[in-house]
Amino acid sequence: MMGAMMTGTLLPSGLATPATMVFADRLERNLAVMAAFAADAGIALRPHAKTHKCRQIARRQMSLGARGLTVATVGEAGDLIGRLADLASQVQITVGTDSAAAAERLAPLAGRVRVMVEVDCGLARSGVAPADAAGVAQAAQQAGLEVSGVFTFPGHSYRPGGAAQAAADEATALAQAAAGLAAAGFGVVERSGGSTPSARLAQPGALSELRPGVYALNDAQQVELGVAAMDEVALMVAATVVSRPAPGRIVLDAGSKVLGPDRPTWASGHGRLADWPAARITGLWEHHAVVALDGDSPRLGEMVAVVPNHVCTAVNLVPELLVADRGQVVDRWPVAARAANR
Amino acid sequence: MMGAMMTGTLLPSGLATPATMVFADRLERNLAVMAAFAADAGIALRPHAKTHKCRQIARRQMSLGARGLTVATVGEAGDLIGRLADLASQVQITVGTDSAAAAERLAPLAGRVRVMVEVDCGLARSGVAPADAAGVAQAAQQAGLEVSGVFTFPGHSYRPGGAAQAAADEATALAQAAAGLAAAGFGVVERSGGSTPSARLAQPGALSELRPGVYALNDAQQVELGVAAMDEVALMVAATVVSRPAPGRIVLDAGSKVLGPDRPTWASGHGRLADWPAARITGLWEHHAVVALDGDSPRLGEMVAVVPNHVCTAVNLVPELLVADRGQVVDRWPVAARAANR
Repeated sequence: MMGAMMTGTLLPSGLATPATMVFADRLERNLAVMAAFAADAGIALRPHAKTHKCRQIARRQMSLGARGLTVATVGEAGDLIGRLADLASQVQITVGTDSAAAAERLAPLAGRVRVMVEVDCGLARSGVAPADAAGVAQAAQQAGLEVSGVFTFPGHSYRPGGAAQAAADEATALAQAAAGLAAAGFGVVERSGGSTPSARLAQPGALSELRPGVYALNDAQQVELGVAAMDEVALMVAATVVSRPAPGRIVLDAGSKVLGPDRPTWASGHGRLADWPAARITGLWEHHAVVALDGDSPRLGEMVAVVPNHVCTAVNLVPELLVADRGQVVDRWPVAARAANR
Repeated sequence: MMGAMMTGTLLPSGLATPATMVFADRLERNLAVMAAFAADAGIALRPHAKTHKCRQIARRQMSLGARGLTVATVGEAGDLIGRLADLASQVQITVGTDSAAAAERLAPLAGRVRVMVEVDCGLARSGVAPADAAGVAQAAQQAGLEVSGVFTFPGHSYRPGGAAQAAADEATALAQAAAGLAAAGFGVVERSGGSTPSARLAQPGALSELRPGVYALNDAQQVELGVAAMDEVALMVAATVVSRPAPGRIVLDAGSKVLGPDRPTWASGHGRLADWPAARITGLWEHHAVVALDGDSPRLGEMVAVVPNHVCTAVNLVPELLVADRGQVVDRWPVAARAANR
């Protein structure tokens, strides 16, 4: 109880664990803070729904002023908004591409979808060099597609101290790519960027649109990167201490099949315990988390709040999220797009 | 096609990717080889069903002579065999415990479940020291529970070159723990062990039961540990090349939400490409795998077979497995216990 009071993690009692919980007040605050930042900066917000895969959160993001949603797959669009066949006539769909060959394959969708050209700003994943964006845009245009702008993912913000450089790289790459499109005769050119670590470093004027996802819920990565405080983490997994096999070691009933196995090399462990700041999850198997913790520690049978390293993969592992408000479970939200990873 | 012929990975054409496939002939061979090994060694086989979570594979394991199944959670038992309330009267349930306090909590199930005492043989996860097993067994007995033996998980076999030592540690720990129980007056004492890397190193007489799971399907970890050949991998994810952004780099549409993010420190990457042995998956995001590959490489739009690092987490990410036989999809098996991680 001491621990629980330290950071204010209030878990409902009597849960069957492991249980993936969303704290309603923290979620609402996270959504409102990012909406206000974007509004103040004059940048449109198009949150990435892959993080939550949940209609209830998507609706709240829209009602707080988001211009639309970002999704990773056609399946996510269908589950979160409606089937794609219905969608095209009702909402504006924009598809990303990073090559002339891929753009040409989109030709059958001409008139139904817009295209944005993906630019690499330093992550070295997908995306063309900024200087090559205009060529891809022209190929798309020749295939009959409307081109609305350029986008990038500054994913190299996911390194300790990396966010400022990633935000600067993002602005530079989008400016160069957009200038290329303008020189090639394209009109209004969207410049879309954003990752949660870099989002609030975006300069007004540098981007026209932000697409962060994790900010809605946060996770241990964001805490360890200094992007979120522990009391801004809105999703945690309630777990039970099932073994205390040796001094300084406890075992929880939450493993990689509920927390997700993500572990960046710079992370302190496989997630964090919200109310035991010195604890480290030193080992993670499918149904066991081994926690190293000296001195006072949770008792056998005690429930603890575990913060996953990466919330997007943790959400994808459960059929529903238990919504907690002031220590009570007040709702259950289906992870509607859970299976929609195609 | 050259590549596909090299190792014989025969993917059905026209799949919507990413698609998680089971190759029926390889699965059957893997099941039969382990069943024959156990029969020859005089060791009972109780395969771990957490790997496949699939009724069809569980049934085949039983029909090949398995004495029962191992499951990680009550939910898995219910989804794979029947609801627990029904189970207790129909089948023998054995529950693991590693403390007197936990054994006492099982007292309400006395007469309905047996108990086995978990021993740590070197993994430092859960389990008591072998010398302490008899004390836990006595506590369970005093709580009214029938004790059937001792078990361990030699998970330190998951290190390059670690399997032989882990198998030896397993045999030593089980022998010591079983001797302790015998000295305390317990009768027949089961000695249950087994992990896929160490299973076929088990000596007749050292173990009475083996509980491997991964062997049914195999994965890139087993290939890189030298436990399985690539043509013994029975589960792969069909993926499409969606970007070739720079020389030596291609991007697939299969990311951590279908392959699983597991990556042991000793792994060469985030999984392997079955037909491109020199390729390495150097980066993995939720919907992107970045592959480093010099020289000849798959074309944009080409389908490739990806071997996940850890099959147990990959299976848990999809609602069904497509069953392939001689290049055709012949069945779809629900991952019946997918959500049953509690």
